[in-house]
Amino acid sequence: MNRDSIKDLLLKYKNDELSEDDMLKNIEELPYSDLDYAKIDHHREIRNGYPEVIYSEGKAIKHIVGIVENMLSKGEENILLTRVNAEIYDALQSITKNLDYFEEARIIIVNPKVKATTDTSILVLAAGTADYPVAEEAAITAEVFGNRVERLYDVGVAGIHRLLSKIDVLNSAKVIICVAGMEGALLSVVGGLVDVPLIGVPTSVGYGANFGGLAALLAMLNSCASGSSVVNIDNGFGAGYLASMINKQGGIK
Amino acid sequence: MNRDSIKDLLLKYKNDELSEDDMLKNIEELPYSDLDYAKIDHHREIRNGYPEVIYSEGKAIKHIVGIVENMLSKGEENILLTRVNAEIYDALQSITKNLDYFEEARIIIVNPKVKATTDTSILVLAAGTADYPVAEEAAITAEVFGNRVERLYDVGVAGIHRLLSKIDVLNSAKVIICVAGMEGALLSVVGGLVDVPLIGVPTSVGYGANFGGLAALLAMLNSCASGSSVVNIDNGFGAGYLASMINKQGGIK
Amino acid sequence: MNRDSIKDLLLKYKNDELSEDDMLKNIEELPYSDLDYAKIDHHREIRNGYPEVIYSEGKAIKHIVGIVENMLSKGEENILLTRVNAEIYDALQSITKNLDYFEEARIIIVNPKVKATTDTSILVLAAGTADYPVAEEAAITAEVFGNRVERLYDVGVAGIHRLLSKIDVLNSAKVIICVAGMEGALLSVVGGLVDVPLIGVPTSVGYGANFGGLAALLAMLNSCASGSSVVNIDNGFGAGYLASMINKQGGIK
Amino acid sequence: MNRDSIKDLLLKYKNDELSEDDMLKNIEELPYSDLDYAKIDHHREIRNGYPEVIYSEGKAIKHIVGIVENMLSKGEENILLTRVNAEIYDALQSITKNLDYFEEARIIIVNPKVKATTDTSILVLAAGTADYPVAEEAAITAEVFGNRVERLYDVGVAGIHRLLSKIDVLNSAKVIICVAGMEGALLSVVGGLVDVPLIGVPTSVGYGANFGGLAALLAMLNSCASGSSVVNIDNGFGAGYLASMINKQGGIK
Amino acid sequence: MNRDSIKDLLLKYKNDELSEDDMLKNIEELPYSDLDYAKIDHHREIRNGYPEVIYSEGKAIKHIVGIVENMLSKGEENILLTRVNAEIYDALQSITKNLDYFEEARIIIVNPKVKATTDTSILVLAAGTADYPVAEEAAITAEVFGNRVERLYDVGVAGIHRLLSKIDVLNSAKVIICVAGMEGALLSVVGGLVDVPLIGVPTSVGYGANFGGLAALLAMLNSCASGSSVVNIDNGFGAGYLASMINKQGGIK
Amino acid sequence: MNRDSIKDLLLKYKNDELSEDDMLKNIEELPYSDLDYAKIDHHREIRNGYPEVIYSEGKAIKHIVGIVENMLSKGEENILLTRVNAEIYDALQSITKNLDYFEEARIIIVNPKVKATTDTSILVLAAGTADYPVAEEAAITAEVFGNRVERLYDVGVAGIHRLLSKIDVLNSAKVIICVAGMEGALLSVVGGLVDVPLIGVPTSVGYGANFGGLAALLAMLNSCASGSSVVNIDNGFGAGYLASMINKQGGIK
Amino acid sequence: MNRDSIKDLLLKYKNDELSEDDMLKNIEELPYSDLDYAKIDHHREIRNGYPEVIYSEGKAIKHIVGIVENMLSKGEENILLTRVNAEIYDALQSITKNLDYFEEARIIIVNPKVKATTDTSILVLAAGTADYPVAEEAAITAEVFGNRVERLYDVGVAGIHRLLSKIDVLNSAKVIICVAGMEGALLSVVGGLVDVPLIGVPTSVGYGANFGGLAALLAMLNSCASGSSVVNIDNGFGAGYLASMINKQGGIK
Amino acid sequence: MNRDSIKDLLLKYKNDELSEDDMLKNIEELPYSDLDYAKIDHHREIRNGYPEVIYSEGKAIKHIVGIVENMLSKGEENILLTRVNAEIYDALQSITKNLDYFEEARIIIVNPKVKATTDTSILVLAAGTADYPVAEEAAITAEVFGNRVERLYDVGVAGIHRLLSKIDVLNSAKVIICVAGMEGALLSVVGGLVDVPLIGVPTSVGYGANFGGLAALLAMLNSCASGSSVVNIDNGFGAGYLASMINKQGGIK
Repeated sequence: MNRDSIKDLLLKYKNDELSEDDMLKNIEELPYSDLDYAKIDHHREIRNGYPEVIYSEGKAIKHIVGIVENMLSKGEENILLTRVNAEIYDALQSITKNLDYFEEARIIIVNPKVKATTDTSILVLAAGTADYPVAEEAAITAEVFGNRVERLYDVGVAGIHRLLSKIDVLNSAKVIICVAGMEGALLSVVGGLVDVPLIGVPTSVGYGANFGGLAALLAMLNSCASGSSVVNIDNGFGAGYLASMINKQGGIK
Repeated sequence: MNRDSIKDLLLKYKNDELSEDDMLKNIEELPYSDLDYAKIDHHREIRNGYPEVIYSEGKAIKHIVGIVENMLSKGEENILLTRVNAEIYDALQSITKNLDYFEEARIIIVNPKVKATTDTSILVLAAGTADYPVAEEAAITAEVFGNRVERLYDVGVAGIHRLLSKIDVLNSAKVIICVAGMEGALLSVVGGLVDVPLIGVPTSVGYGANFGGLAALLAMLNSCASGSSVVNIDNGFGAGYLASMINKQGGIK
Repeated sequence: MNRDSIKDLLLKYKNDELSEDDMLKNIEELPYSDLDYAKIDHHREIRNGYPEVIYSEGKAIKHIVGIVENMLSKGEENILLTRVNAEIYDALQSITKNLDYFEEARIIIVNPKVKATTDTSILVLAAGTADYPVAEEAAITAEVFGNRVERLYDVGVAGIHRLLSKIDVLNSAKVIICVAGMEGALLSVVGGLVDVPLIGVPTSVGYGANFGGLAALLAMLNSCASGSSVVNIDNGFGAGYLASMINKQGGIK
Repeated sequence: MNRDSIKDLLLKYKNDELSEDDMLKNIEELPYSDLDYAKIDHHREIRNGYPEVIYSEGKAIKHIVGIVENMLSKGEENILLTRVNAEIYDALQSITKNLDYFEEARIIIVNPKVKATTDTSILVLAAGTADYPVAEEAAITAEVFGNRVERLYDVGVAGIHRLLSKIDVLNSAKVIICVAGMEGALLSVVGGLVDVPLIGVPTSVGYGANFGGLAALLAMLNSCASGSSVVNIDNGFGAGYLASMINKQGGIK
Repeated sequence: MNRDSIKDLLLKYKNDELSEDDMLKNIEELPYSDLDYAKIDHHREIRNGYPEVIYSEGKAIKHIVGIVENMLSKGEENILLTRVNAEIYDALQSITKNLDYFEEARIIIVNPKVKATTDTSILVLAAGTADYPVAEEAAITAEVFGNRVERLYDVGVAGIHRLLSKIDVLNSAKVIICVAGMEGALLSVVGGLVDVPLIGVPTSVGYGANFGGLAALLAMLNSCASGSSVVNIDNGFGAGYLASMINKQGGIK
Repeated sequence: MNRDSIKDLLLKYKNDELSEDDMLKNIEELPYSDLDYAKIDHHREIRNGYPEVIYSEGKAIKHIVGIVENMLSKGEENILLTRVNAEIYDALQSITKNLDYFEEARIIIVNPKVKATTDTSILVLAAGTADYPVAEEAAITAEVFGNRVERLYDVGVAGIHRLLSKIDVLNSAKVIICVAGMEGALLSVVGGLVDVPLIGVPTSVGYGANFGGLAALLAMLNSCASGSSVVNIDNGFGAGYLASMINKQGGIK
Repeated sequence: MNRDSIKDLLLKYKNDELSEDDMLKNIEELPYSDLDYAKIDHHREIRNGYPEVIYSEGKAIKHIVGIVENMLSKGEENILLTRVNAEIYDALQSITKNLDYFEEARIIIVNPKVKATTDTSILVLAAGTADYPVAEEAAITAEVFGNRVERLYDVGVAGIHRLLSKIDVLNSAKVIICVAGMEGALLSVVGGLVDVPLIGVPTSVGYGANFGGLAALLAMLNSCASGSSVVNIDNGFGAGYLASMINKQGGIK
Repeated sequence: MNRDSIKDLLLKYKNDELSEDDMLKNIEELPYSDLDYAKIDHHREIRNGYPEVIYSEGKAIKHIVGIVENMLSKGEENILLTRVNAEIYDALQSITKNLDYFEEARIIIVNPKVKATTDTSILVLAAGTADYPVAEEAAITAEVFGNRVERLYDVGVAGIHRLLSKIDVLNSAKVIICVAGMEGALLSVVGGLVDVPLIGVPTSVGYGANFGGLAALLAMLNSCASGSSVVNIDNGFGAGYLASMINKQGGIK
């Protein structure tokens, strides 16, 4: 319910086409239901033109298919599913063939539609080869939301020259996502080289005293480099989404 | 050392005012010391006009005084010291009277100088009264770096109506800092209400199974709200610095 | 052994049908064995009419079948088994067809029998889709014990309007169960909206720094909302049982 | 803002004493501000007749004094402050002499006023002498909220006969609070003896591998006794408040 | 090298059949090699008549078979293997049919031989059905080492009357092993009832905040009952072995 | 209430000096109160002649004094207080001068009385100098309970020859207490050298990743040496008490 | 790029064969790219003659094959792959038959080539049979890098005589690697016996409160023996590599 | 007992001044006592010329003074005390004025004596100003043991140019000690730049989710740079001692 439909109600009440009781009921329901729901949805649609994202892990396949069917029936485009697998991909193909599957990033986009892209770019760094899936989840998420994305993988601090040789790339990004497992030192080093917002994504890559990503998480949280913050372990989507928000603040308006 | 001073060196070398050996020595030192050092400094100076920040906790007072004296001798302005106490304030007064002391935020600014301020604003939310010092550390940091800052304190989720009644304030911010101890739920709720970048600052406020801020930290990292990230426990400065970076990307250029 | 059988013993002793030694032996055994055992069992039967609940996880199937057979032989009704799976269901069908299987809630009821139901109701909230199995375990447990149960699922704080739009439902419950994984913020928000006893059930739903439900558990324990307490991670049964106790205190007597 | 004041607005709008724009503005603000705020407050006042509770730990004394002064100016009675110390007590005496100080329970009640008390009672159990402060915090909280409270202290499981000899006391309570540090086994044992709601309060009493109450907390969460739940470590107030809610459901209406 | 071979050396040296240097060399090597090795082995054989125990978990089956073959070739009896599975049992049958397999306890005894048994007994308590495998590992270990063993299972504190009704059994044991998962409260309760050495065996039985036995381990370590100690989680063998040591101190000499 | 007093009751009842109702009431109260209480106390008194031990940490001094006064009024001897400090010692001197204060072991014995001592002995090992207080707590506890105690301190594994040179002392003990902080390796080494029951006492001695004794605790729990178990961190009393139980089983009867 | 090529550039610039702009570009790129990259690679090749090591865990097989193919095309010898499995071995055989597969150590060497070996040796100790894979990973790594390696397995502290009997072997090593799970006490004992650098490798071997190697890790970090340090849990390769570095410092130059 | 005294025994036995039984007894006791003790001590003295190091933390001052007095009476030089404070310094001055006190490093050397120094050097790196005390403990320890030591402080990765500009210093060291708190990334970066043994010393410097050095410890253990290992948190002495061992292997022999 938007401002105009409220005006209609007010007019009807004034013209005695609506009783005082009904008018009161409408007013009382406004904030909690449609208007609030609509506000957030419109907000979301207006800004990036995408419906709700479906986090697939832990959901039954039949539920996932049901949700996508419902959204398709409303004509939604660029429906984003994260943490998918081949089984989900197969199931979805039974209802539509119009979908892109990024296997490594575990992402599916239903009804993909090309969008205008930002001038400024998001840079996604990955420390090692094993961090690729999470890095790709971040990169593709950002691309789906209409951002230009640069990738720089396998630039862990153990071979810091590879990182230093790309300092121009680092400096030209508007926001940088650092994906790193093991000791997660990449965030700190990058933070000392550039002056743009940094989003750290600790990964569960590692063994022994890595404790499922805890080592990288703690290291990133304790980074002495200013301008950085951290998302949950392996949360590539969260980093891509936040980076998109930041990237679009200056470059699109 | 900047590009111009390198040009000078090259010219001198060409004119035989500089030997090959000296030229080689200068070149070899360039990237690692002066040029690199200068690049970062200039970068920093050009963008926000502030020298290095001094994190005071754990440093000897004589060292802090020494660093500030050195910076004053170079004419630095708006020197920012975080995590200070009354003892540090007293010691610094022996070398200069030109300083502002924000006791609750544990911040001192030496040679404070009024700066132009951004049009867009950073909103700092604090869940409870006990989160004030950390919230103020974030807010004043952001102000020192030239940002307009709004404050909304004591809006914890236990009284969610206070938060909901300020939804316009939430929506008008360009970036929001959420400072919360206990269970840190504020970040998730705010994340569901707005579509701007959110920076969570878990605080060590609480008792029992709070474990020094661990409860709030884990809660914020696991927030199901998109567009948020987290800094270290009690790290108000880090949040203020990152928020400033994000806020300035669109509003100043 | 009840009061009457003790009277019999005393009479026999007085009439010299029982020696002093035998009488002493009987007295010494009284509290520890039958009388105590009987008291607790009767207590349980009288109040809610259900035998012991069988927690199935970690028990051999043959043992589970054996226990149920034994209870059936005594004519027990509404025998409740929790944490069952399809294999257990198949095994039980070999001894009786009179059983209800709630697959998602992992509950079986043998010899189900309709009971009178409370006037007041228990409300079960679930933050997300993945929390359904635990929420259903709580809801069905409460129903089996004769409570009226309302369900409100997928009302996580990231979309708080959905929760706010149901505030009448929240306020009409006599006790509320909050099932939530991730950051578990639902408990705090609900606690700020209503004034009824709240039982938090953290779930192991989540990833990364969720650490098997630890994040939600700590968040719920640290909730700043009054009137709430917490059961073990994923312990839907425990929440349902406690809610039933509370709900029946006022509504049945 | 209540229903009547909304009616007034509607009337004014109909009579053209209020412009459409102003009417729209009023409607949009309704749910988030006064009405919502008022609803919760009245709810609280109507049910138990007490204003907000002040958790004193971590708050500046001047702030605590300020809050109490404000509440006194509105004529509030039975203002409850928890986690106080002698210093706070001294400071409060400068603004009013009408206060009760429970030193061991670390509670102050300003403007205390005798209230009618419930017929049913809350039983507070404490395992050891060192658990007294937390137990008293729970007991006095419950008394302040108008409940009859029974106390049974030093009944730890190492001397289980002391507990067993009081089984009548256990069975006559409407809700039981179990306060225990060390291994927190009291909750499980009591849970096996009675069929009333149990609230466990793990305390930080202990040493070595107790880890500040973690041992008791985990033990209580894993209790195999049905009908129990747990509050935060040392959270006597939370237990007393919840117990009051439960106790009043049946006994007062 | 034994006492006799040393005598030989001394004689040779005295008779100048061995140089002073060679004699010195022999003496210096003595403690580190054979004599020390022999001493410990004999000690073990003399006292309880059993060879080294084989902990099977994590060992390759071919290695386990090899070790047993080697021991059989030396005529060892009552060879004890713990943490075995069906696969190991099958493999061992290819080299000998003379073995007992306790499936639930995961124990195999090769070349079993009946031994004289102690007069005094070890009591093994298990809190719940799921603790049986660990309890049986303890019980059978103790029996293999020649102890009389009593069993009392499913006597968890949630039904404390079952435990209390067996107080004579508790008091007649010379040492008690308490096997319990969940919250591990059994150790504390038993410790308050009897005055014999207690060995707690926390098990990994449980879920949620049990954290693989940590809850029971911490609870048992913090038990306020005197006379108890704890072995590693699920370490039934260790408890049985220690109990045997204690039981035999008085009863056999 | 003992067997004789029950006989009296039975006789009175038979002689009609006691009504059936009164007899029933007496019987019902028997197990839970006096008889049970008396049984445990007598058990304790008969075996070692000592009253309840007073753990002083966390108790108010006035309470400690009160408990001791009460025990003195009943003529108790050898009243043992653990974890005392100088302040407690001073306070107790105001009520009696007949007390021994072991400052390093933090133990006071009120009304000390020489007892007969066991033939067999308990050996207390301490790895380092900093472990002395805990080792002495164990040693003196054992002595107070009438055991012969040997001490062998500063025999940590870093200088293993010191331990090996005392192998006769190790082998002559009936039970050994190993007190060790840091990495707690002493227990494992001793366990490989002897075949007597071992009680490990991890201490909080250490720094860094010692985490308050956690490192030593985990190491001791994981010891691969058979025949050992562990008490809580720094729990010298618990080790001494258990060692006394074991030592007296064979040596006194 | 080396000093000579820089001289060339300078000469060209002086002779106007290179523009100022190109000269500036060359200077700016110097440290970050080729020179740095080349330096490290040559460093590595010159010192030990081996290319980069491939850590295989978590890498896709096609990636591993691709990397090895690439290295083979450049004529690399002694290509070391760690954490391999049979599947990787099969895949690699499709591109070359010239490879050694150490199944237990999970190592493959492609294009193996015999190298001169050090005079001094590295000693690898393993506490138990289950530690073999990690110990072999360390030993073979060291051998591949051209070190003489001694092995001493199954010398855990529970049978310390086996270790003591080999004291000459311990003392003759130039560096010792201690591989141990469970309580990790081997490091401390060896540290007290010898005066050479010790590298501890905690393993995840164990159960219960071992927590995946945490117990051994903490124990080794807290070892009171001087001259030791620790690598990550199960990190045999890291230990072998470091030991090689230390061993070669004296023995080869 | 040394080789000469054994010769005496042999001679006496040969001359029938010692019976075979007494000779046998002497031989059996040999390994455990004097001979072993002497061997290790001489080893230590011969190699580095220093007596046992005294770790002062947790020791009573009177004990420390006693130990030093005893060592002085035997003419020991360069007696090293670590973790001292001013109080210990004052106490030691009462027995000797011949001592050096390094306040920041918390080290005292009694009877200091200049020693020959190694040609090769140990490099001590410190990430930040707050890591100085631990870095100095490492550096001075290494110097006391006769090593040439280089220092490079305040070279944390947030300003990586400072580190890169000193790459020659890094490469010229024979072993490098990396002292770092916060996220401990320094070790990884340095490990990627050089090919010498690296010893990581995590420090407890930091706040929030640093958890007393745990973050730096885990990060260093998970470092992906080869050739590194880690000592306990804040263990500067351990790092200095190990570095000395490694440095002297090649440079002195």
